[in-house]
Amino acid sequence: MTIGQRIPMRDGHLKATGRLKFGADLRLPDLLYARLVLSPHAHGRLRRIETAPARAVPGVVAVLTAADLPWFQREPESHARALLAWERVVYYGQPVAVVLAESEAAAADSAARVEIDIEPLPAVVDPLKAMAPDAPRIWPGGRPGVRADAGAHAADVGSASEGSAVLPPNVSDHVRYTRGEIARGFEEADLVLELTYRTASVHQAYIEPHTTTAALDPATETLTIWTSTQDPFGVREEVADFLGWPENRIRVVPTPVGGGFGGKFTLLEPLVAALAIHTRRPVRLTLTRQEEFLIGTPAHASIITLKTGVKRDGTLTALQARVIFDAGAFPGSPARIAANLLGSFYRFPHYEIEAFEVLTHKPGVGAYRAPGAPQALFALESQMDEMARQLGLDPLEFRLRNVMGEGDELPSGKRYGPIGLRACLEALREHPLWREGRREPGEGIGLAVGGWHGGLEPAAAMCHVDRDGSVRIYVGAVDLQGTHTAMAQLAASILGVPLEQVRILQGDTDTSPYAGASGGSKTIYTVGLAVQRAAEEARQQILRIAAEHLEVAPEDLEIHDGQIYVRGVPEPRMRVGEVAALAQRFGGKFEPVFGRGTSAQREQAPGFAAMLVRVRVDPETGRVTVREVVVAQDVGRALNPLLIEGQMHGGAAQGLGWGLWEALRYDENGVALTASFLDYALPIAPEVPPIETRIVEVPSPHGPFGARGVGEPPVVPGAAAVANAIRDAVGVRMTELPITPERLWTAMTARMIAETRLRHEWGD
Amino acid sequence: MTIGQRIPMRDGHLKATGRLKFGADLRLPDLLYARLVLSPHAHGRLRRIETAPARAVPGVVAVLTAADLPWFQREPESHARALLAWERVVYYGQPVAVVLAESEAAAADSAARVEIDIEPLPAVVDPLKAMAPDAPRIWPGGRPGVRADAGAHAADVGSASEGSAVLPPNVSDHVRYTRGEIARGFEEADLVLELTYRTASVHQAYIEPHTTTAALDPATETLTIWTSTQDPFGVREEVADFLGWPENRIRVVPTPVGGGFGGKFTLLEPLVAALAIHTRRPVRLTLTRQEEFLIGTPAHASIITLKTGVKRDGTLTALQARVIFDAGAFPGSPARIAANLLGSFYRFPHYEIEAFEVLTHKPGVGAYRAPGAPQALFALESQMDEMARQLGLDPLEFRLRNVMGEGDELPSGKRYGPIGLRACLEALREHPLWREGRREPGEGIGLAVGGWHGGLEPAAAMCHVDRDGSVRIYVGAVDLQGTHTAMAQLAASILGVPLEQVRILQGDTDTSPYAGASGGSKTIYTVGLAVQRAAEEARQQILRIAAEHLEVAPEDLEIHDGQIYVRGVPEPRMRVGEVAALAQRFGGKFEPVFGRGTSAQREQAPGFAAMLVRVRVDPETGRVTVREVVVAQDVGRALNPLLIEGQMHGGAAQGLGWGLWEALRYDENGVALTASFLDYALPIAPEVPPIETRIVEVPSPHGPFGARGVGEPPVVPGAAAVANAIRDAVGVRMTELPITPERLWTAMTARMIAETRLRHEWGD
Repeated sequence: MTIGQRIPMRDGHLKATGRLKFGADLRLPDLLYARLVLSPHAHGRLRRIETAPARAVPGVVAVLTAADLPWFQREPESHARALLAWERVVYYGQPVAVVLAESEAAAADSAARVEIDIEPLPAVVDPLKAMAPDAPRIWPGGRPGVRADAGAHAADVGSASEGSAVLPPNVSDHVRYTRGEIARGFEEADLVLELTYRTASVHQAYIEPHTTTAALDPATETLTIWTSTQDPFGVREEVADFLGWPENRIRVVPTPVGGGFGGKFTLLEPLVAALAIHTRRPVRLTLTRQEEFLIGTPAHASIITLKTGVKRDGTLTALQARVIFDAGAFPGSPARIAANLLGSFYRFPHYEIEAFEVLTHKPGVGAYRAPGAPQALFALESQMDEMARQLGLDPLEFRLRNVMGEGDELPSGKRYGPIGLRACLEALREHPLWREGRREPGEGIGLAVGGWHGGLEPAAAMCHVDRDGSVRIYVGAVDLQGTHTAMAQLAASILGVPLEQVRILQGDTDTSPYAGASGGSKTIYTVGLAVQRAAEEARQQILRIAAEHLEVAPEDLEIHDGQIYVRGVPEPRMRVGEVAALAQRFGGKFEPVFGRGTSAQREQAPGFAAMLVRVRVDPETGRVTVREVVVAQDVGRALNPLLIEGQMHGGAAQGLGWGLWEALRYDENGVALTASFLDYALPIAPEVPPIETRIVEVPSPHGPFGARGVGEPPVVPGAAAVANAIRDAVGVRMTELPITPERLWTAMTARMIAETRLRHEWGD
Repeated sequence: MTIGQRIPMRDGHLKATGRLKFGADLRLPDLLYARLVLSPHAHGRLRRIETAPARAVPGVVAVLTAADLPWFQREPESHARALLAWERVVYYGQPVAVVLAESEAAAADSAARVEIDIEPLPAVVDPLKAMAPDAPRIWPGGRPGVRADAGAHAADVGSASEGSAVLPPNVSDHVRYTRGEIARGFEEADLVLELTYRTASVHQAYIEPHTTTAALDPATETLTIWTSTQDPFGVREEVADFLGWPENRIRVVPTPVGGGFGGKFTLLEPLVAALAIHTRRPVRLTLTRQEEFLIGTPAHASIITLKTGVKRDGTLTALQARVIFDAGAFPGSPARIAANLLGSFYRFPHYEIEAFEVLTHKPGVGAYRAPGAPQALFALESQMDEMARQLGLDPLEFRLRNVMGEGDELPSGKRYGPIGLRACLEALREHPLWREGRREPGEGIGLAVGGWHGGLEPAAAMCHVDRDGSVRIYVGAVDLQGTHTAMAQLAASILGVPLEQVRILQGDTDTSPYAGASGGSKTIYTVGLAVQRAAEEARQQILRIAAEHLEVAPEDLEIHDGQIYVRGVPEPRMRVGEVAALAQRFGGKFEPVFGRGTSAQREQAPGFAAMLVRVRVDPETGRVTVREVVVAQDVGRALNPLLIEGQMHGGAAQGLGWGLWEALRYDENGVALTASFLDYALPIAPEVPPIETRIVEVPSPHGPFGARGVGEPPVVPGAAAVANAIRDAVGVRMTELPITPERLWTAMTARMIAETRLRHEWGD
C-alpha cells in the first residue's frame, strides 16, 4: 500500500528542472500582449487619458480604457472587477489603461507613453482613521459586494451574531461573539492583561506572477481562459457574472500554479476576458513583479486588542477582543475567521469578541495561507505566553490546562470532534528543546500553537481503468501542494495497482467534475474523499468482472501489484488491465471500469500545529537569528509524510516571515513603498534554520484514511513563537509585526532606560 | 420532450458556413509539415533512395526513410504500419520516404526531388489469380496480422466454422457456414439459378482528407496526437502497440471528422507519431486528394457466386455461395460479414456459404459504411429479383414469403430478436410507386432490401449538472452523423431541461470515458444508452437534493423546462441550476450532481432498410437516370427524424454510387488509374433525385427509447435496387458494378443480337 509512503511530488522534478510549462509559456498564434498603465495616486478622479502617443508605437493594436469596455463602466463589486478604473481610482497602482500589442516590448514601450491626468483626492490609509464616522468614504455610492476568496478558505463562521446595523461608512463587516458575562469573568481574575497587537500587510509572494490568456472562438462565441488559478470553477463563475454570460460559454483551463498561497483566485481573468472579446484576438496579461506588489491581493494589516483574565492557578476567566482588519478598497477580509479563532483554542468561560472590517485606499485584500489565523494567533499566543510568564507558570502546561478538545463549543456554535491540539502540545512537551530548555546566552525559546478549522466543499471524481492497466482519475481540483500525488496514492492503494499506473487528470471546467478552489486545507479532505470513493467503486467493478470471467465469487478475489489473485492461491489469475480490456473492446460483454465518487463533507476536520523556536537576539542591533525550529502538527493520517513535511517546512518558514521580516508599506498618501523583492524582505534560505517536524496523527472520522488538511496550520504559530522566544531571550514583549531589528532595538533600549531609571529611582 | 423532434445537427451551421475548425486548421508553434514520396511500382525491391537533392531545398529539416525510423524496420502488420516501406513496396503509391519542412511548399518541392531506385517485381492484381497456389506471394514471410477496422463495424460472426486449414498462400481468411444438405435443397428446387456478381473497389470519398498532427512533450515524454479519426481509443491502442509505448503516454485528441464512412480509423497516426518522436518537433501530415486515392483504405472488389434453388410457388430451397474479397496487401476485409449476411435475410433450409479473403498488390482494405453488406446484398437481392422474374412472381411478395424474422437463426448461430425487415417491405408495398407500378417508356422499377446487424461495444458516459443549470455530458465517442445531437436530446428529455442547456463534450483519450469507434451503427445504441443512464442517475440526484432542500418526498417532484415542480402545483419551486448550485459551493451540504452511465449491450439491434428506385435507361447510350428513390428503414425509435432522414438520404445516394458510378481501377501492373475526382465518379447533386423516406419503428428491446443504429442500413440495398430496376426497364440482368453506360449498352446490345438471332433461327 502506498498510503503512508514518502513519495516525491509527481511534477517536482519538472518544477525543479524548469521544464514544467506555465501559463506564460503557452504559445498561441495571433497572441496580443497586454501591458497595464497604473495610477500614480491612491485616490483621485480620472480626468483624461491621452492614448495617441501610445497608439503610435509600432506593433500596438489598441490602447484601451474603461471607456472602451462597457463591463468596467459601473461601480465595481470586487478588486478583480476594478482592474480598469472607471471615473475614480481607489488605490495606488490601480490600472487606468491597457495596451495591446504584437510583442511584449511594444506593449511596454506603448504603456510608458500613455498620458494620465488624474485629479488627486485625499486618501484614507490608516484603518483606525477610516473607521471614524466622518472619514472620507471609500465608496460614496455604497459598499461593493463581498468577494469569495477569503470565504473559500474560511471555516464556517456564519452563525455569529451580526452585530450592530449602524456601522461607520467605511466599515464593511462586523461580527460579535459573546459567551457568559464578561464583567464577571474579569472580576474573577487574579491577573487582567490588556495588549494591542498589530500585524503588517503581507504578500503571498508566489514565484510565478499572475498570468492569464483568453481567446474567443469566433465560430461558437465561446471563451477559453488559460489562467494560473487555484479556483478554475470560481473563475468561470466570476467571469460569467462579470460579462453577463452563461457559464457554459466559458471554459477555464487552469495552468500550473507556481505558488498561490491563497493569492490566486480570480484577478486578471475578467479584464483579459473583456480584452479578448473586444479585440477578437487571443490576449495575454502577465504581471510584472512590481505589479504583483501593487495590484495583487495581499493580506492587509490587522489591529487586535486582547484583554484577558486569568486566576493565579492558570485558570482562564475572560477574554475581550477587538479585531480590526484593513481590507483595502474591497471587502473580503478574514476578520470573522480571526474572531472565531480567538475563541476556538482555549476555554474562556466568558468572552466578548468583536471584529470589524475596514475599507481603505489600498488594493483589495486576498487570502493568504490560513487567512486571519496568523493575525489572531499572534495576538492570542503572545497573550497566553505573557500571562504565563507574569504568573510564573510554565507556558506549555498553562496551555494544556486550558486547551479545548472534543465536544467544546466554538464561537460559531459548532462543536469540536476529535482534534489534535492537545496532542501537538504534548508532542513538544517531550521534545528535548522544551524539556531541557537549553539555550545559550542571548537566546530564548518560544512556544505557540496554531490551527485551522478546514474548509468544506462538495467534490466529485472519476476513476477510469484502461486496457494497459493504467488508471485515470479525473478531478476538478488544482494541484498546489502535491495533493495530486496523495490522490494517486489513495487510488493506487485502494485499487491495488502500482503507483506509476495512476494518473491524476485535472482538466478544465469543461472536462472536469466539480471541485472548489484548492485552498483552505480542504483538497484531500473533500476531493480526496471523492477520489477514494471513485477508486473503491472501480475496484468493485474490477472484482465483479474478473469474478464473472474467472467463474469465482468476487469476495474470493483480491488485487495487488496490478494482478488479480484468488485468495490463498499464490499465482495471479489475470492483470487488472486484462479485466479493463474485457470491457473496452468490440463486442465486449462488460461495462467499462469507470467508478464515480462524490463527497459532501458536513463536518470539518480541524488541524492544529504547535511550534517551538530558539532564537538569538543581537543585543547591539536587535537583529534576531532563528536557530532552531520544531513543528508538531496533527494531520489525522499522514498519507505522504514527505509532502506533509514539505508543508510544515514551508508553513514554518512563512510564519517566520510574518514574525520577523515581511511587510508591505504605504506612505500617508497610500503610495506603496514596497514594490519589489528589494524592498519586501522574504525569508530566504540562510535565514531559515533546519526545521524539525513531528507528525501527530489523531484520525479524522471523515477524512480519507483519517486524513485532515495540512496546508494551513503550520504557518499559524510562527509569529507568536518568535515573539515569545524574544520575550524569553531579552524580556521584551513585542506586539507589532514584523519584529524588525529597529523595533526590537527600540523596545530593548526603552526597557533598558526604564530599568535604569527604576534602578536610579529606587537605588541600586 | 425533445425525443422525436426534428433538431438540426448541432454543428451543422458551422460546417455549412465553413467555420468549423478541422485538424488541418490547428495552428501549433514550430510545426513541421510532412510530405510523402510515393512508390511508382505496385511491387518492387527498394534499392536506393537519394535524399541529398531533397535535403538541399531551403526550409527542409529532414528527409527520412524507414532506415531512419526503427519502428518501420520489420514486416508490417497492417496498412498503417507500412506507411513507410521497408525493403519492399507492396502497392502502387506506398510511401518510401517522407520530407519534413518548415512550410508545406518547401515540403512539396523537396519531395519532388527525392530520387527513388526500385527494382520492379511482378505484381499480383487479380484476386482470382492471387488465389492460385503458385501465385507469387504477397507476403513471402507469412501473412500479417488482421486489422481491427472492419471488425469494428462487423456483426459478431465469430462462431462460423473456420474452414480448411490448408489455404493458398495469398488467402488470408476463410469461413464456411452450412445448414441442412445442400444437394437435397437443389433436388427439391423447380428453378436453380447460378450467377456471379462482381463489385468494384469503392472509395469512402470523404471531403476532408486524412490529417494528423503529433507533438512530443519533452518534459513528460508523452505524445499528443490530433487526428481526424472515428476511433480515438483505437488509435491510441494502435500507436502504443506500434511504438511499444504504454497507452498512458499517448493522448489522442480527435478533431472534427469531415466525413469518414469507415475510412478514418488508424492510418497516418503511427507514421506521424514516429516523425514527432524522431524530430522532437510537432509534425503534421495532411494527405492530398491523390494520396487519399492511392494510400487510403477503400473497399476492394468482391466476386460473389450464388447458386439458388426455389420451388415454383416461391419457396426457397437452397443457397450455395462462394464469396471472394480482395483485401489488398493487408488482411481485414469484411468477407466474413458478407458470408453471414447472405444467410441472414431469407429462410434457406439448406445452405453452404463459403468466403475467402485474398491478398493482392493494392493498398490495404478499409471499412466503408456497412462493410461487406452492399456487396453481399447486391448479389443476394439481384438473385432474388431474378428468381422472382423467372418464376413470374411479384418480387416483393416473393420476399415477404421467405423473409426472416424474430427467432430465426443466422449463420453465426445467433437468433434474431424483433426486427423490422418485414415491416420495411410492407411499408413499400403500400407505396404508390410499387402499388401502381407506374412507369414511362424506357423506365423500370426496382426493389431491394438491405440491413446491418449492428456493432456492440461497451461504453461509458458522465452527466454533470452545473450551477447555471447547464448540463455537460462526457462521452468518448466521436460525432459523425449527429449522434451528439441525439445524445443531447436524450439527456434533455430525461433531465427535463431545455435542449440548449445540454452540451455533449467528447474530449480526448485522456479526458473522456471509454467508447469504441463511431461506426457500425452502434453509437446511439451503446454510447447513447450510457448517456441515458448517466442522465437518469443525475435526475435522481437532482430530485433527492431538491427533496431534502424543499422538505418534500423525491417522488412528489417533477422536472420540466429546467424547473422543479411539486406535483400538482403549477408554480415551479426552484431551478435545476439552483439545485446544482447547492452542491457546488463553499460549505455545500450535497454531493455534486454527477451521474454515471455505463453500458455493455449483449444483444444486437439489427436495422433494415428497403429501397424502391425508378430508373430510365437511354436505349442509345445505356446511360441510366435515376428518377425516383424511396427508402423505408426501421430505426427502432426515431430520436431525431431530421437527422435520420439525412442518414437515409446519404446512404441512398452512396448506394446509387455503388450501383452506377463508383470504381477504383488498377491496370494489370497494379498502377492506380483513378487518383482524382476527375477519374473517380461520385454521385453529385444533379444525378441524385429527390429521395423519399419512410421511417419504420419496430422498437429495439435494448436501445435507448427503443432506438436502433441507423447509419449503415440505407446504403445497402441501393446497387441491387438499381440493377433490378434496369432489369425491369430493359430486361437485362447486370451482374457487375458499377453499371456504367458502356457495360449496360454492351449487355443490351448482346441481348438484342441474341434475340435477333433467336428470331432468325426460329423464324419471326
